[in-house]
Amino acid sequence: MMRATLVACVTLASGAAFPQAPPPKPLSTAELLAASKPEDWRQLDPANTLYLELASGRVVIELSRHYTPEHVAAIKLMADAHYWDGLAINRAQDNFVVQWGDPDGVRPQEKALPNLELPLAPEFTRPVSKDLPFSALPDVDGWAKTVGFTDGMAAARSGPQQWLAHCYGAVGVGRDNAADSGHGNELYVVIGQSPRQLDGNVAIVGKVWRGMELLSSLPRGTGGGLGLYEKPEQRAPIKALRRASSVPAAERTNLEVLRDDRPVFAQFVEARRNRTDDWYLHKAGHIDVCNINVPVRDVK
Amino acid sequence: MMRATLVACVTLASGAAFPQAPPPKPLSTAELLAASKPEDWRQLDPANTLYLELASGRVVIELSRHYTPEHVAAIKLMADAHYWDGLAINRAQDNFVVQWGDPDGVRPQEKALPNLELPLAPEFTRPVSKDLPFSALPDVDGWAKTVGFTDGMAAARSGPQQWLAHCYGAVGVGRDNAADSGHGNELYVVIGQSPRQLDGNVAIVGKVWRGMELLSSLPRGTGGGLGLYEKPEQRAPIKALRRASSVPAAERTNLEVLRDDRPVFAQFVEARRNRTDDWYLHKAGHIDVCNINVPVRDVK
Repeated sequence: MMRATLVACVTLASGAAFPQAPPPKPLSTAELLAASKPEDWRQLDPANTLYLELASGRVVIELSRHYTPEHVAAIKLMADAHYWDGLAINRAQDNFVVQWGDPDGVRPQEKALPNLELPLAPEFTRPVSKDLPFSALPDVDGWAKTVGFTDGMAAARSGPQQWLAHCYGAVGVGRDNAADSGHGNELYVVIGQSPRQLDGNVAIVGKVWRGMELLSSLPRGTGGGLGLYEKPEQRAPIKALRRASSVPAAERTNLEVLRDDRPVFAQFVEARRNRTDDWYLHKAGHIDVCNINVPVRDVK
Repeated sequence: MMRATLVACVTLASGAAFPQAPPPKPLSTAELLAASKPEDWRQLDPANTLYLELASGRVVIELSRHYTPEHVAAIKLMADAHYWDGLAINRAQDNFVVQWGDPDGVRPQEKALPNLELPLAPEFTRPVSKDLPFSALPDVDGWAKTVGFTDGMAAARSGPQQWLAHCYGAVGVGRDNAADSGHGNELYVVIGQSPRQLDGNVAIVGKVWRGMELLSSLPRGTGGGLGLYEKPEQRAPIKALRRASSVPAAERTNLEVLRDDRPVFAQFVEARRNRTDDWYLHKAGHIDVCNINVPVRDVK
């Protein structure tokens, strides 16, 4: 009487040929990935990758190459200046976000970053164009006309605008009420049910590819109904937040992500949409863009 | 330069009357709840409520009154027999579920619970009927024809069948591959993006109304790709799992939930669908059933 596995392990499809063979069983996701080719994967660019170093380990964030150029440039400037080192994660709101930055105003950007030009453009959405990649899903979405992926990051499109979607692991820029009040130094990561109501209201600058569990398992804060840590000692200190390219090669976490513009990606999504293992008695026939955990692995 | 609040605090609508007044601002959720009446709330029945007592505190679970009678009866029998006391949460899979039960087979149900008749009926869905409450939402859903609520628990309906949906905080019964292999003693709680692909595949027996943060912040397990704790000492021991009705009245957590069949509930949902505070520059015009955190509060 096992039942310790809510979702059963993958059953390998039999390769045996019968005289009157049943239709071949669709490949499982494990089988699909095992059969993928090196060119189906995209390696993260160290110059475009952040390491958030916590006492518990490393969180690997890729910055978007397409949606928020001003914010990404500002964040690179800040990382290279060690702006966040010694600051802390000061907010963990259950089923919503964790957030870090300078809530006490101890590190004014204008002093720490004389080269940073503020304010930043809002960059909440971006015009659809042939230079803005988008691998569309056929699945309906309530928040946008179409959903899909750009560089493996969940994205959405309605009319002439496209944007990165607030799915689990999305990294966004906190702001006040004014559209241009997000200065790139207050960053948050989605740790719960996708808060898609934030779509189009915030600049999403990237995605966590590894280490989400270090953020999602932080104790929740109790302040202000916002998950703020009420005492400074509850905060999770940031040892360093820097670009991978500034870290010695031997100390890097080299990751590659399944390319969303390859046939194997569509096959992978289909295998998640209609699960192939025997545990599923009812196949969903649908998948939400935020339910697709895009495969990521260590570069061999 | 605040920006510590990703989502700004509620702005109270002005009550001042101008000679040519602008249209009144829609009420915020805080204002709506403040204006609600006592009869807009439903108190949890202690006989139908479980307390999961952990070292970190109490998790309050309401059992469904409508969808899974056989499973709920079995779970009450187990709680009353102290079946889970001394067992532990043995699984925490990031962005998916936490789970507890008897993975090592140290407490066979047939010995501990001579009155329990197994197997239980699958109870994954239930026929639509006038006796099965359902407060429908107008919002599109990719996983079902219609979504809504039953007793404040997210629910879904397609054709003649209705079921409780896998949203954050839903409590389900783990099983093996056979439909009737879930014996009610392995329970899981959703702690991440709603895994709606499980809908119709599992008996959902209830919902966590308080204490989710005690489950969602547990360290993630590393075993089997399933979040299993690899060492017994990593598990989170269950001090007790019992019905509220078996706890002295003075030690109870008495909660009440906003009734989903009242006009104020529809107003609350609309205020979440199209946010009324000044922070939102773009209103979503949509809400996912799993994005609605149904209000719950202490009984005064």
